Amino acid sequence: MSLLQISSFAAGEWVAPGDGARTIASAITGAPLATAGNSALDVQAMLDHARSVGGPALRRMGFHDRARMLKALAQALDARKSKLYQVSFDTGATQSDHLIDIDGGIGTVFVFASKGRREMPDGHVYLDGDVEQLSRNGTFLGQHICTPLHGVAVHINAFNFPVWGMLEKLAPTLLAGVPAIVKPATNSCYVTELAVRIMVESGLLPDGALQLVSGGLGDMLDRLGAQDVVSFTGSADTALKLRRTPAIVENAVRFVAEQDSLNASILGPDAQPGTPEFDLFVKEVSREMTAKAGQKCTAIRRIIAPEAQVPAVIEALSARLAKTVIGDPRLETTRMGALVSEGQKRDVLEKAAILGQEAERVFGDPDAFDVHGADADKGAFVPPMLFHCADPDRARRVHDTEAFGPVSTVMGYRDLNHAIDIANRGGGSLVTSVITHDSAVASEVVLGAAAWHGRIYINDRTSMKESTGHGSPLPHMVHGGPGRAGGGEEMGGVRGVKHYMQRTAIQGSPEMLAAIGGRWVPGAAEADKGAHPFTRRFGELEIGDTLNTASRTVTLDDIAHFAEFTGDTFYAHMDEDAAARNPFFPGRVAHGYLLISFAAGLFVEPDEGPVLANTGLDNLRFMQPVVAGDSIKVRLTVKAKTRRTEDYGEVRWHVTLTNQKDEKVAEYELLTMNAY
Amino acid sequence: MSLLQISSFAAGEWVAPGDGARTIASAITGAPLATAGNSALDVQAMLDHARSVGGPALRRMGFHDRARMLKALAQALDARKSKLYQVSFDTGATQSDHLIDIDGGIGTVFVFASKGRREMPDGHVYLDGDVEQLSRNGTFLGQHICTPLHGVAVHINAFNFPVWGMLEKLAPTLLAGVPAIVKPATNSCYVTELAVRIMVESGLLPDGALQLVSGGLGDMLDRLGAQDVVSFTGSADTALKLRRTPAIVENAVRFVAEQDSLNASILGPDAQPGTPEFDLFVKEVSREMTAKAGQKCTAIRRIIAPEAQVPAVIEALSARLAKTVIGDPRLETTRMGALVSEGQKRDVLEKAAILGQEAERVFGDPDAFDVHGADADKGAFVPPMLFHCADPDRARRVHDTEAFGPVSTVMGYRDLNHAIDIANRGGGSLVTSVITHDSAVASEVVLGAAAWHGRIYINDRTSMKESTGHGSPLPHMVHGGPGRAGGGEEMGGVRGVKHYMQRTAIQGSPEMLAAIGGRWVPGAAEADKGAHPFTRRFGELEIGDTLNTASRTVTLDDIAHFAEFTGDTFYAHMDEDAAARNPFFPGRVAHGYLLISFAAGLFVEPDEGPVLANTGLDNLRFMQPVVAGDSIKVRLTVKAKTRRTEDYGEVRWHVTLTNQKDEKVAEYELLTMNAY
Repeated sequence: MSLLQISSFAAGEWVAPGDGARTIASAITGAPLATAGNSALDVQAMLDHARSVGGPALRRMGFHDRARMLKALAQALDARKSKLYQVSFDTGATQSDHLIDIDGGIGTVFVFASKGRREMPDGHVYLDGDVEQLSRNGTFLGQHICTPLHGVAVHINAFNFPVWGMLEKLAPTLLAGVPAIVKPATNSCYVTELAVRIMVESGLLPDGALQLVSGGLGDMLDRLGAQDVVSFTGSADTALKLRRTPAIVENAVRFVAEQDSLNASILGPDAQPGTPEFDLFVKEVSREMTAKAGQKCTAIRRIIAPEAQVPAVIEALSARLAKTVIGDPRLETTRMGALVSEGQKRDVLEKAAILGQEAERVFGDPDAFDVHGADADKGAFVPPMLFHCADPDRARRVHDTEAFGPVSTVMGYRDLNHAIDIANRGGGSLVTSVITHDSAVASEVVLGAAAWHGRIYINDRTSMKESTGHGSPLPHMVHGGPGRAGGGEEMGGVRGVKHYMQRTAIQGSPEMLAAIGGRWVPGAAEADKGAHPFTRRFGELEIGDTLNTASRTVTLDDIAHFAEFTGDTFYAHMDEDAAARNPFFPGRVAHGYLLISFAAGLFVEPDEGPVLANTGLDNLRFMQPVVAGDSIKVRLTVKAKTRRTEDYGEVRWHVTLTNQKDEKVAEYELLTMNAY
Repeated sequence: MSLLQISSFAAGEWVAPGDGARTIASAITGAPLATAGNSALDVQAMLDHARSVGGPALRRMGFHDRARMLKALAQALDARKSKLYQVSFDTGATQSDHLIDIDGGIGTVFVFASKGRREMPDGHVYLDGDVEQLSRNGTFLGQHICTPLHGVAVHINAFNFPVWGMLEKLAPTLLAGVPAIVKPATNSCYVTELAVRIMVESGLLPDGALQLVSGGLGDMLDRLGAQDVVSFTGSADTALKLRRTPAIVENAVRFVAEQDSLNASILGPDAQPGTPEFDLFVKEVSREMTAKAGQKCTAIRRIIAPEAQVPAVIEALSARLAKTVIGDPRLETTRMGALVSEGQKRDVLEKAAILGQEAERVFGDPDAFDVHGADADKGAFVPPMLFHCADPDRARRVHDTEAFGPVSTVMGYRDLNHAIDIANRGGGSLVTSVITHDSAVASEVVLGAAAWHGRIYINDRTSMKESTGHGSPLPHMVHGGPGRAGGGEEMGGVRGVKHYMQRTAIQGSPEMLAAIGGRWVPGAAEADKGAHPFTRRFGELEIGDTLNTASRTVTLDDIAHFAEFTGDTFYAHMDEDAAARNPFFPGRVAHGYLLISFAAGLFVEPDEGPVLANTGLDNLRFMQPVVAGDSIKVRLTVKAKTRRTEDYGEVRWHVTLTNQKDEKVAEYELLTMNAY
């Protein structure tokens, strides 16, 4: 049987493996499956292609264009995911594992596509935070913006999730507007290669936006500069080696590392046997141990339980693990497949032996376990192994040795502070979980442990049905952690997109900031074009279009009538003496709601037209009381526009109410849905 | 005359310089002034003191407590600033320079104090962004939080701003809740030492919150771990050396670097001689060249002007620089003092000679210039020196050699893209400015250059009166830049505080997130305690306190009457057929403002009580139309509380309007000011 030839995709061409390419074996049978690597890749040409073709093409698109592209890419992958499932079995993964890797990866792209549309602007400049007032009269202001880096993102991925691992980095990178060069781990690169083929063949990506290195990177990292980013997932040792690359240190190249860590799960003191939380804990721990045969950077390596519950935890976990059917991942009955390779199996067994120096193995024997439908001696199979460490305070290895397989260690704690201390002894982790029904326990763990963990996952009877799992990084939430976990952050919605953008502080006049951000800023030009802006369609409205209304006097009758009509008879509107006792009012004042209702009366265009509905209102502040006899007028300016569908767009209006002395009495932003 | 003994402050004790301490000379006279360094500092004891005494004490305080402490520290410094002025002259700085360093530093602390109160919570957990919906029914949610790191911040500062340089790092560090060890550059450490003495003697700081190393750090950096931060300001060479410290690389220690860079200023194509912008450009450039004798990491090193304007720029700049009186900084007539030291003078002259290989010196001769009131041969005086580089495309040194003194190079550009290209050739800068009255020019520069510059400063006739200066980093705005500028960020308000905190993704039920964040989350418990919550004072109200109102039916008369009364006769409220043609409405619907006015009528407590005023409203969204015959009711829940003064506090209420079918029709947050 001829081996699969796993190609690279470089500067627009597929490049087959060259002489001396590495052979990749099936995790199930140990038989040679594919070859990859040692291509005659011109890494400088790849970088040039990304920087001078891919980057400019992506930057010509706006955030929403790129978000739409991501959605289409996710759809293209989704349509061909059965092909991806098919080739993935040989990595040792079961169909359940595929759901994490393949469906999880595609889902991540969908979430970034959606967040890009909802949380980023329909343009080229992302506004980071609000305008900063840098001057008394407002002629000089500040605004932080983010724009795409002009370089290339080099993604170095781990073997365990060949699809998700690529897509969770690729989605924020492309959304930012930065081209990527993806280097999957060789062990499972045939799955990644297929996913890249699907994306490339979809024709959705601009030339140069995505390249693939199957095999080694050569000296690519030595050629990186200040506009490039390295995003690494893998072992702490490899991260350390790459971090020291002279070009990376000298050019202050961004280096985002996500390393596997000694993640913990804490059983709350309240979660005694018999509670839903105890059962939940056992279920989550055993699932995290066996999913993907424990080859998850977020897997639970340390099981931290009240000392009194340690025997019950070991018993319940052992009972559950004993039911784990190990075997050929293609079989529907199989619950746990193989490790990715024979080498990985050796490594896990070595690490388990190290743990054995400080902890006793209480479940699982690598020399005696059943494998269904495959040859235990040929495939990279290991059983789940549970250890118990009786003295976690004096132990060291159990806190810093990661057996990257179905291996975990139970430790007892005396009190919650002790549990926190044990969790933090991992030196920094991607995730720690707490299973408790007591919010005071959860709060205490968070306050004591948050500085050491990138994610803290809390679960109980209330959330267990909808909870997403200790080990599942979500595109919405930051994935990464301090210290041992690499000190990096990925995903977390727009936070993850910012890793591929430069934040720049912009200072200038309101006019300048408005032009740069595509968003009107108080003080920038207001264009009063005569005709009511509500008569202009979405496409015709321009940032800065303004309406100045006539004024209306607020009478005492108005106030009394509004109070009676709405039922809002707050004393400040009803009783001159009582109102005057209030520290904020001179006497009887108009209702705030009366003012904004009258304001609408002043600016509304009654006839059918492009404004279809007032959908909301933001940041309303009442700045000055209005008393009977005062008159109010309104200024309404187009602040921002966001196309929502083919037919509609949302218009954000800056609204200012002033009185007869031109003092501001209220300010807010109004949202309307306008016909395109 | 005996020399000043500049001490360190270590683990609560002042430690005098030891044998072999370094002698520091006056920049003005070259005479020995002080000694510092070689103390028998126990750096491990300092780290331990910070981590185990200072950190816990700061973490017991909340963000607002620490913000109040910062304000008091700034006041203490402000009260004794004349002493700081006095000792600062010997660094070569003029009184104008003191305003930048000393007043600027104190002002920075005031801004962080104020931002801490206004933009951070009155508690221990900073909420980063909104709740993330992770489940269909809302029983499992996400929230990012930031909490103080458990380690210590080591601040390594440059010589040029001995006060501001310390305070711009110290303010965000202390606000975050992290103790600091400050290491000023030895040349000007006597000024820093006095500022530290003022702060320590104020008694405002908890023990261990602030320590000072006058002299070298010894092997302190080798002892840092994952919870520590190094914040460095200085040269690229030193940054590179420190970045390679094995402990920093191995433990993924945060390393924030701010390096001096080849900052540029671009004269817009519109800003021809005779325009206000041309004059402004000349004024800003000459000021940036001479302030602090050009020893500013943000100083303009490259002057980028349209080729046609180069002669005019050189002429105008030379005329202005010729008026710069150089001399003893204590004299009121002096406009530019000395460099900090003889060594610095040598370095500047060497670098100027390197620039001379690619550019012609067109103003300033270091061998022939006047010095007033001081001996030019003894003090570290140099004149402003202007160079002209005729071929910036082929030149290399002018883009990477920084003479850290009053030295700058003029370069001509052909078109705006060429100007952007020249600016970006600095390989990353702290700030680039553009002087233009044309917002299209500003936008083009920002789009082309933002990825390479930490700050872009735009100025014109509109903003010039209130603008803060090309070279002034502000506490509100990020200070730092990519590549050559170090790849770091400082300040930028809360952004800078986050450098000293860990961001953690929290997942759990609404109840758990509410307990951790101190902020009610939809789905968390609502406590309907019978009595109207508006009758409870600020101190008595609890997160989750809830009012459920009676319901009110909205009639067609109500709608017609509200339209007539307010003047809001939008067709969707008036005309059944026209309303039905609107894609969002089933027919004639109630005004949104009618609904929120009726809602107030349902929840308001009319009598005098602790609720003093409705001050605002946020995030109002209309979710479902209400037609005549529908009835609405309101649920009002305490979401958050923020003490504002001794007497008042702001209460944020989550408000939900539902109809008779319990469908949400509107949702918003209401702000009230309540008596304590």
